[in-house]
Amino acid sequence: MNHNVVTDRPTFVTHLECSISGERYDADRLHGLSRAGRPLLVRYDLAAVRARLSRDEVETRQTDMWRWRELLPVRGTENIVSLGEIETPLIPIPASGGPRVLVKDEGRLPTGSFKARGLVMAVAMARELGVKRIAMPTNGNAGAALAAYASRCGIETIVFCPEDTPEVNVREIAMQGARVWRVNGLIDDCGAIVGKGAAEGHWFDFSTLKEPYRIEGKKTMGLELAAQLGWRLPDAIFYPTGGGTGLIGMWKAFDELEQLGWIGPERPRMYAVQASGCAPIVRAFEAGEEHAERWEDAHTVAAGIRVPRAVGDFLILRAVRESGGKALAVGDPAIMQAVEDCARREGLLLCPEGGATLAAYREALKTGEVDETEQVVLFNCATGLKYPMPPAPDTLDRHAEIDFAAL
Amino acid sequence: MNHNVVTDRPTFVTHLECSISGERYDADRLHGLSRAGRPLLVRYDLAAVRARLSRDEVETRQTDMWRWRELLPVRGTENIVSLGEIETPLIPIPASGGPRVLVKDEGRLPTGSFKARGLVMAVAMARELGVKRIAMPTNGNAGAALAAYASRCGIETIVFCPEDTPEVNVREIAMQGARVWRVNGLIDDCGAIVGKGAAEGHWFDFSTLKEPYRIEGKKTMGLELAAQLGWRLPDAIFYPTGGGTGLIGMWKAFDELEQLGWIGPERPRMYAVQASGCAPIVRAFEAGEEHAERWEDAHTVAAGIRVPRAVGDFLILRAVRESGGKALAVGDPAIMQAVEDCARREGLLLCPEGGATLAAYREALKTGEVDETEQVVLFNCATGLKYPMPPAPDTLDRHAEIDFAAL
Ligand SMILES: Cc1ncc(COP(=O)(O)O)c(C=O)c1O
Ligand SMILES: Cc1ncc(COP(=O)(O)O)c(C=O)c1O
Repeated sequence: MNHNVVTDRPTFVTHLECSISGERYDADRLHGLSRAGRPLLVRYDLAAVRARLSRDEVETRQTDMWRWRELLPVRGTENIVSLGEIETPLIPIPASGGPRVLVKDEGRLPTGSFKARGLVMAVAMARELGVKRIAMPTNGNAGAALAAYASRCGIETIVFCPEDTPEVNVREIAMQGARVWRVNGLIDDCGAIVGKGAAEGHWFDFSTLKEPYRIEGKKTMGLELAAQLGWRLPDAIFYPTGGGTGLIGMWKAFDELEQLGWIGPERPRMYAVQASGCAPIVRAFEAGEEHAERWEDAHTVAAGIRVPRAVGDFLILRAVRESGGKALAVGDPAIMQAVEDCARREGLLLCPEGGATLAAYREALKTGEVDETEQVVLFNCATGLKYPMPPAPDTLDRHAEIDFAAL
Repeated sequence: MNHNVVTDRPTFVTHLECSISGERYDADRLHGLSRAGRPLLVRYDLAAVRARLSRDEVETRQTDMWRWRELLPVRGTENIVSLGEIETPLIPIPASGGPRVLVKDEGRLPTGSFKARGLVMAVAMARELGVKRIAMPTNGNAGAALAAYASRCGIETIVFCPEDTPEVNVREIAMQGARVWRVNGLIDDCGAIVGKGAAEGHWFDFSTLKEPYRIEGKKTMGLELAAQLGWRLPDAIFYPTGGGTGLIGMWKAFDELEQLGWIGPERPRMYAVQASGCAPIVRAFEAGEEHAERWEDAHTVAAGIRVPRAVGDFLILRAVRESGGKALAVGDPAIMQAVEDCARREGLLLCPEGGATLAAYREALKTGEVDETEQVVLFNCATGLKYPMPPAPDTLDRHAEIDFAAL
């Protein structure tokens, strides 16, 4: 029995706020982007939370993501659609990373990726606000999480993914009750179709950051990390950045935790990791821009970060800069090498996006951007089992004479 | 920081015991099967545990499987090789199961299956006892878990699997640093090769129940279940049974918990679920036999329970009978239908073996073997992502006129 998802708890949302203009929007009503065309952020009465809830009380609760109820937007307990959103473990990788490097293994969440955090929240809110039909563009993982949660509570879903999305992802989405289409294009091409259909009233648009609640779910990565590390944040975080929800969410989480007095003003340096074949945020970071232009001809093995254009670009860049971090690009060979090393030496099979964070960390170590004595967290955002692996070996004839020494 | 795996804790193993003759064997020495050719069981000084440890104290600890240290065989904390063995969630499946049916989702463990529980323990003990080279037959999941843990601590591994083992499993094993061979035969044919090599001194034999510690790891499923359900066991457990380690392990766990005074004498009815195409335990159960003969021409989509012969057959049969449960067989079509229904209605993608437990539960409901008011736990022993799924859908041309209403 999970008390976190059956016990009613007070909620503290006051309003939503445009992330660029600060304009206020009513809570408890359905919203997409702000009038300025930018993401909306959820705001809470943190002083009231502080008066009612302590770190110690949170620590007595079961350690899944719903222990953070007072910092989350869902009002009605009955709208929570849970598939068991456990706290993900931190796994040391001394042999392929370094003595103080921890991997946050998000592949343990429902549907095998951290997209579950965002989507469990967004679906609960869609349910709370009466949405009946949802569409979404996806590189695979987000669509799978949407399908699972929406099907579980009877919301209809239509999902669009790039043509070359790995078969296992597409099948998973279909199995979990969504209608799914491959599209001859990239994720923003899929997003354009979703946007058009939404404008014509066919469905509600669930694209990254185009509805306000996925970020609140992703925020729990930051909350969890703080609790797991005894309310002391790491020196640096490496995050594989596509739409950037997780990075933006964690940055928001740290701010809220400080306002609650649960952590101090120290922050990790945030490293936004992209692939060299699709690095719009890195390009903008290096050029000192506030926004990032679309990256043409995007390509990388790390499909989850093959996002040519991010609606929250300025929020990613702002967090990275404020934190004293950087945006870093790594090539596909370095990504695959990192995945291979980590599997072989640590027994931990990263997804390519997770491999990208390890590759970027290694590079940062070489350039002196981080040093070995620092505590670093790398995000492995999905299970490595969803991704292609090198072919397996030969067959042995059990009837033949076996040369054991040669095996 | 996981205190459970870094804090030294007292250990209580007294000896090992032959499961058929009761003959005693020294603890802290390397053993395979007993002299009678049967599995060895680990025995503890439970009176001493009872005097030192309470349920309440266990409940204050982090909820991973190492919270049960006093009931586990590993003496040296430094021998624990962890990849984050979290407590797996219990997920209600009201729409495809029933109002009081819970799925224990073991796919969240390292390497995506419950084999991690057994292998993390067996590898720690192998390390403690100085083993340098291990071989194992596997239907896929056990090999992956062995490879991961053994590679992590520098133990060499050689793994043999049936020719038709799904590609993803074989590749995962190889990626994680084991040498892996396909064999033109079934798992017991692979086991014969392992046994021969072990007899010739090439490696230590890690076959199911042929070393004493995997069962201790699997036992934690029973310990965990008791704690999660507030120290009241469910009315029935449906377990997909191949070698049967999990079922035997849970039965042992319940016994130990009762000796500790943490639960009473009540037990769940244990249902050993097999596939119609490979049901040696069901046949023996129905014939009233104590041992099960090899099942010829074994075939089923649920590869994990395609085990023609189990060295612990009598232990499985004994537990099932003592519990008032049954051994049940289900056909592949019912298995696939259960997987499909659960994915579509609950958003939970079971592995075929998990599907088998749901199919068996549905059948048991029809025959009146269980009723809807009873609390039932089904074991989903691996992530559904490792298994073949039906092909995915068509491609949409983004340049064409889209008929949204028709999508
Ligand atoms: C495995 C994986 N890593 C990273 C990302 C990028 O996440 P975000 O959109 O939060 O930047 C994705 C998104 O699809 C993903 O699937
Ligand atoms: C997914 C899955 N379910 C069930 C089983 C059977 O487990 P046991 O050997 O404990 O009976 C296996 C074993 O390979 C498995 O991989």
